[in-house]
Amino acid sequence: MNDDLLTGRTRLDRHPERGSHDRETIHRILDEALVCHVGFTVDGQPYVIPASYGRVGEALYLHGAAASRMVCALERGVPACLTVTLLDGIVLARSAVRHSVNYRSVVVLGQATPVVDPAEKLMALRAITEHVIQGRWDDVRAPSKGELAATKVVRLAITEASAKIRAGPPDDDVRDLGRPVWAGVVPLELLPGAPVPDASTDPESSVPEYAKAYSRRR
Amino acid sequence: MNDDLLTGRTRLDRHPERGSHDRETIHRILDEALVCHVGFTVDGQPYVIPASYGRVGEALYLHGAAASRMVCALERGVPACLTVTLLDGIVLARSAVRHSVNYRSVVVLGQATPVVDPAEKLMALRAITEHVIQGRWDDVRAPSKGELAATKVVRLAITEASAKIRAGPPDDDVRDLGRPVWAGVVPLELLPGAPVPDASTDPESSVPEYAKAYSRRR
Repeated sequence: MNDDLLTGRTRLDRHPERGSHDRETIHRILDEALVCHVGFTVDGQPYVIPASYGRVGEALYLHGAAASRMVCALERGVPACLTVTLLDGIVLARSAVRHSVNYRSVVVLGQATPVVDPAEKLMALRAITEHVIQGRWDDVRAPSKGELAATKVVRLAITEASAKIRAGPPDDDVRDLGRPVWAGVVPLELLPGAPVPDASTDPESSVPEYAKAYSRRR
Repeated sequence: MNDDLLTGRTRLDRHPERGSHDRETIHRILDEALVCHVGFTVDGQPYVIPASYGRVGEALYLHGAAASRMVCALERGVPACLTVTLLDGIVLARSAVRHSVNYRSVVVLGQATPVVDPAEKLMALRAITEHVIQGRWDDVRAPSKGELAATKVVRLAITEASAKIRAGPPDDDVRDLGRPVWAGVVPLELLPGAPVPDASTDPESSVPEYAKAYSRRR
């Protein structure tokens, strides 16, 4: 296990056997999740806001309109926390307290930096769009200079991070194993439905493969 | 619109047309989401942690082992933020910057209170289990006195909250509508797979309906 992402703040006190500081594991979970939840504190009050993001190597990018409270706070370099969670299943045990959820999550701590260089900004917006739907960027109009200027982008380096994974069957007390109740896992996955064209799309135009076969699996 | 949940801190500065402070809307989203993300600050650092929860009327319950960093912080009454996000679809526009995600989210701000009364604690654990999988509680062994004592529960009242909803097709600039590219929505939903019994479950025993037909829809 690569432990360079481990600090006192990302050490896992509860269920340490579920934890990992392995970069590959962290990257895979970050790439599979669709949105993150960003935490930041303003006037002593923490806020947790869902947001799109993109990863390029060891950098995570977030964006927002110039007035976005989240991006404005992050730009100021306040301590932040970026968390993603994949829900993999419901764990049905034989006793109430052993019920659980199978999941894979990543917590990244740090302070973000504003991205001002237009080339890095464009690269970040491409990464965010491609994170949401891989293969889309080249099919659509790229941001204009005005759109780029109206969008704020911040970078959060993955320097202090941990993954936590709960997988597999219920962990029942051995004294409960004889109970005549079904126990196991109901798997869960975020799955796509049939793409819905908007009113201006030519009904004859074919649905792109990345929309027809949309998947978060990485 | 019922505005009593609206404060300066839950006012929506960005896309106010997507916001709501209606209790029914907020309850419906809270009931449909499987996990929440809880934000709290320790030594100036915000943490965002995924957690199960349950709702009883205007109260949200969270639980954890006695050593859980999250529950210990919440017990102390630090300012907290509980956020849930439902992912409903990918919005494919004709320009990069108009891409979006359809979602329904709720943000609840407040300070939690420890639940010490054993009857309320038991009721809270029942609400959390039933939130995760409705119909399960009566089929399994209830918590023992020892299990109850080893579990911490906190209550967060829904007194300051907002919902935010993005739905529907892309919102393209009218000058982009003629572009020959497919645009629309790829719907998303957290869906169950076939239940997987654990090694101690009698293979002849039938899978309960709440596991076979698991759904988050409310």
